[in-house]
Amino acid sequence: MAQQAPREAGSRERIHRIAAELFARNGYDATGIAELSEAVGLGRGGLYHHIDSKQGVLEAICRGAIERLLAAAGPIAGGDAPAEEQLRALARGLLRDIADHRAEWTVFFREINALSGAGRAAILREREAYEALWTAVLARGAADGALTAVSPLAIKGILGMFNYSYLWLDPAGDRAAEEIAEEFCALLLRGLRR
Amino acid sequence: MAQQAPREAGSRERIHRIAAELFARNGYDATGIAELSEAVGLGRGGLYHHIDSKQGVLEAICRGAIERLLAAAGPIAGGDAPAEEQLRALARGLLRDIADHRAEWTVFFREINALSGAGRAAILREREAYEALWTAVLARGAADGALTAVSPLAIKGILGMFNYSYLWLDPAGDRAAEEIAEEFCALLLRGLRR
Repeated sequence: MAQQAPREAGSRERIHRIAAELFARNGYDATGIAELSEAVGLGRGGLYHHIDSKQGVLEAICRGAIERLLAAAGPIAGGDAPAEEQLRALARGLLRDIADHRAEWTVFFREINALSGAGRAAILREREAYEALWTAVLARGAADGALTAVSPLAIKGILGMFNYSYLWLDPAGDRAAEEIAEEFCALLLRGLRR
Repeated sequence: MAQQAPREAGSRERIHRIAAELFARNGYDATGIAELSEAVGLGRGGLYHHIDSKQGVLEAICRGAIERLLAAAGPIAGGDAPAEEQLRALARGLLRDIADHRAEWTVFFREINALSGAGRAAILREREAYEALWTAVLARGAADGALTAVSPLAIKGILGMFNYSYLWLDPAGDRAAEEIAEEFCALLLRGLRR
């Protein structure tokens, strides 16, 4: 008989967090429902009480990550601070989110192609919306005359500088994510300032 | 009866190239030996005449990619051009290699954790050796007084700007990889020059 699960064992957030860790460590395809159900401490039936499918869990992880990032970035980009300050705030927020949710971002960058259909399309639109916030901030800086104008590909390059950190960022490292973000921004802004 | 394979059908390079495309599109774990053997037009027995295992193919793809990059970058970093020119040449070489071998780099960045043991360790050492070439060039620029000194994490950030392009670089796009690399370097070097 399956062990009685603690009250919160079935919370969807907890299942998603544990699934993100398994997917990040072993890969989405290589992680079975049996393994997930064992890791969360629920029987197969108990697990399916909370999730629809493994695919649905992957989608929820990716959507959760990009929506959390968008929700934090929207007010920054929509505020009236100088573009340079907004860029630094976006960068600090991005690296902090990657540091705090590294498994989710690993899954996001590695496994997004395992998704399909409307769910995948919605997530890609949200990723574009996030990129558009950086584009808007840099465009405002260029319109102000504070920063040089950059091409859409340069924005992908700048984002890559931060995004790629899911591979090396150490949440327990000597330097806080915010401090690293400031160092990257200092380098970028020396190049971007007019 | 299996169709007679053309003379070069079994060449290891061709198998690795086709495998990289399959792994990049569908994921390493989700790609079976049956699918690979069908894609290369060899029966299972014919395929195993040329490969040891699926894991061995993944290892060869990743090792091939990083060794090709290292072989091209070594002479650049070891030459006596100014650091700024060396940096630009490294950047052009990296983006050109990603453009020409995007499937391999997709597999490299996404699937390297599916490798284990000595093969994986050797590939990670080569990746560090490649990063060390960028570090050496930037350190020489700082020693010359031409560039500001950057931290090891900033070098990871700079590399991320280029590496992350495996996700968006379009080999058939309007702009050549070299041109994009020059744009990124122009931005970086405005930030790096003393």
